[in-house]
Amino acid sequence: MENFEFVSPTRIIFGRGTDREVGKTVAQYAKRVLIHYGSDRIKTSGLFDRVVSSLTAEGLEYVELGGVAPNPRLSLVREGIELCRKHSVDLILAIGGGSVIDSAKGIAAGVPDAEHDVWDFFLGKGTPKVCLPIGVVLTIPAAGSEASRSCVLTNEDGWYKRGLGNDLFRPRFAVMNPELTFSLPPYQSASGISDIMSHIMERYFTNTTKVDLTDRLCEATLKTVIENASLVIQHPEDYDARAEIMWASTIAHNDLLSTGRIGDWGSHQIEHELSGMYDVTHGAGLAVIQPAWMKHVYKHDLKRFVQFAVRVWNVDERFDDPERTALEGIGRLKAFFSSIGLPVSLKELGIPSDRFDEIAAKTFQERSTGVGNFVKLTESDVKAILELARE
Amino acid sequence: MENFEFVSPTRIIFGRGTDREVGKTVAQYAKRVLIHYGSDRIKTSGLFDRVVSSLTAEGLEYVELGGVAPNPRLSLVREGIELCRKHSVDLILAIGGGSVIDSAKGIAAGVPDAEHDVWDFFLGKGTPKVCLPIGVVLTIPAAGSEASRSCVLTNEDGWYKRGLGNDLFRPRFAVMNPELTFSLPPYQSASGISDIMSHIMERYFTNTTKVDLTDRLCEATLKTVIENASLVIQHPEDYDARAEIMWASTIAHNDLLSTGRIGDWGSHQIEHELSGMYDVTHGAGLAVIQPAWMKHVYKHDLKRFVQFAVRVWNVDERFDDPERTALEGIGRLKAFFSSIGLPVSLKELGIPSDRFDEIAAKTFQERSTGVGNFVKLTESDVKAILELARE
Repeated sequence: MENFEFVSPTRIIFGRGTDREVGKTVAQYAKRVLIHYGSDRIKTSGLFDRVVSSLTAEGLEYVELGGVAPNPRLSLVREGIELCRKHSVDLILAIGGGSVIDSAKGIAAGVPDAEHDVWDFFLGKGTPKVCLPIGVVLTIPAAGSEASRSCVLTNEDGWYKRGLGNDLFRPRFAVMNPELTFSLPPYQSASGISDIMSHIMERYFTNTTKVDLTDRLCEATLKTVIENASLVIQHPEDYDARAEIMWASTIAHNDLLSTGRIGDWGSHQIEHELSGMYDVTHGAGLAVIQPAWMKHVYKHDLKRFVQFAVRVWNVDERFDDPERTALEGIGRLKAFFSSIGLPVSLKELGIPSDRFDEIAAKTFQERSTGVGNFVKLTESDVKAILELARE
Repeated sequence: MENFEFVSPTRIIFGRGTDREVGKTVAQYAKRVLIHYGSDRIKTSGLFDRVVSSLTAEGLEYVELGGVAPNPRLSLVREGIELCRKHSVDLILAIGGGSVIDSAKGIAAGVPDAEHDVWDFFLGKGTPKVCLPIGVVLTIPAAGSEASRSCVLTNEDGWYKRGLGNDLFRPRFAVMNPELTFSLPPYQSASGISDIMSHIMERYFTNTTKVDLTDRLCEATLKTVIENASLVIQHPEDYDARAEIMWASTIAHNDLLSTGRIGDWGSHQIEHELSGMYDVTHGAGLAVIQPAWMKHVYKHDLKRFVQFAVRVWNVDERFDDPERTALEGIGRLKAFFSSIGLPVSLKELGIPSDRFDEIAAKTFQERSTGVGNFVKLTESDVKAILELARE
């Protein structure tokens, strides 16, 4: 086990009706709020009004900024920074999923720093030293951004998607009402599930040995997600199944599962280029890339892939043929993604094979620490993974 | 799943050599520290000097108060409160295990409140509103107090042992170096393991349904503790096994595993009277009481005990005889405790059977909310459990 520091101070307020009480929590931190969101769906659903009512009941003022798109963009973050400065906002309240929360994090880091453009931080030119407090009303369980230290933005100038980690990015609180996820379409629910699972698997595949507890916590969370996935696809208003997926999304990415171990993140890095270039849904892209990545690297640590197959996928271990056991596990992961309606090839995702070289090259641009840790990938590895993912 | 709020803000600083850096962390919160500890062993081992060096290197001042006994006592807490007031201490640094940390929590709650005697809080006459910050250098993995909201003290005036929960009791930071646990004698290591497992099992046995994620996280943590237990007993300097047990002790009791569910705590309540009256080691008492409690209540929810047997103890499920499966699980728990050198009967613990009525009666005194939740126990239930634990 590696030495580690871990802190996850986000206050989780979880359950039915919790979105009606947002104002009371916000009032502990702020007087003037930026409500940040994506589409107008939160207005037609009544959620926006409920939140505003609870804010005004506490005497809080607000300005609003909608329009966050999937793969949230730098230009809107810059617009948010200006708006917050103009109105002396002292808390960003993100209502939405990972894209909205990440956009809010970008704004929160940019507002107090007059010396840097916020993109500088993502290029390693400077580090955020202070941040406006961030609150969340979660509507999409997927990115785990509601309690994570990470933030991923896309710069439209070149379509680079880059991530940044900092404990200042951890929201002060996250209001999580599973009922708000009843209306998610099946494809979006499934993409969220893939994203959650990927956050766990990126941590699971590690070269760090003797990490029993986090191995088992990873396996426990994966099994829970797998067992509840078909329920939320088939019965969108199954509160308990929605609740399991929602709480798992947070646990998957608040760094508990990476304590004492070094994760991989190669699949995420490749997928970031895909979704930056083709604007595909992040979780769908991961459902395509992650099994292909596994097929490419499993021989690096066959025992770990056997463990994954046996413990997560209940594969009957073939002691005389560990390779077959390992491949059966990877096969079940792929079959599972298919079963919940996700693409498992670039072809199904609608991505042609004519720009593999460009994707591979871009994956390495502006990444000083390389791509992947479990296996340090080269450009030709990335191309081989894309080939394995082709159809 | 039940609605819940969860926050666990303690900064965990985990790994080899971390105790040399305590001063830097303390300096973020305080200028004058009370170093609180148990026996002089931390002085002969050199730990006390290392901590003091790191404090003085940061220009921090300190006073010290040792002498905390297992089942920490109210009189020393009151002495600590006076000492802190006299020296204007602004952080309590607990060096030790659960008893020292709980004693520190009692002091931290008592210092700022001039209106209440600290025991009032434990009797429900008043609630702590502020608390001095608490830091921890953990030497015994067991109680989980290093990140928990709970504090258990014993009032020598009548030998009542009572617990209190409050988020203010969560330490600001916990320095956790598994090397510091190498010197723990086997019996103390085993008692710690029993305490950790009991914290999980008290949460596991619940009437709340549809709690898949926390069920599996509980099972994952239990399995990790079970698998590493014999290693730390047989090889006290196995760093990795010590690290697994140490990190599990925190996870077991920081309330992550009780999110969305209502735990039982009946076994703890009974054991508190035992260790209050006979001053036995808490974990050893639990090793006796918990299996007896299980035998008394398993019919209340046979399926849950089957799940416990199959998932935690790898019992081959007898689908035609769930009762046999359930009892096999309880039997394996008891055999496991024996295998690591713990008593599994009151006789082995040295407790005679002549005061069962008194223990049962005391368990219900000054407990307005009753004893147990999974099954609400009566005095005759407690006596039946003590009979089952007799030999």
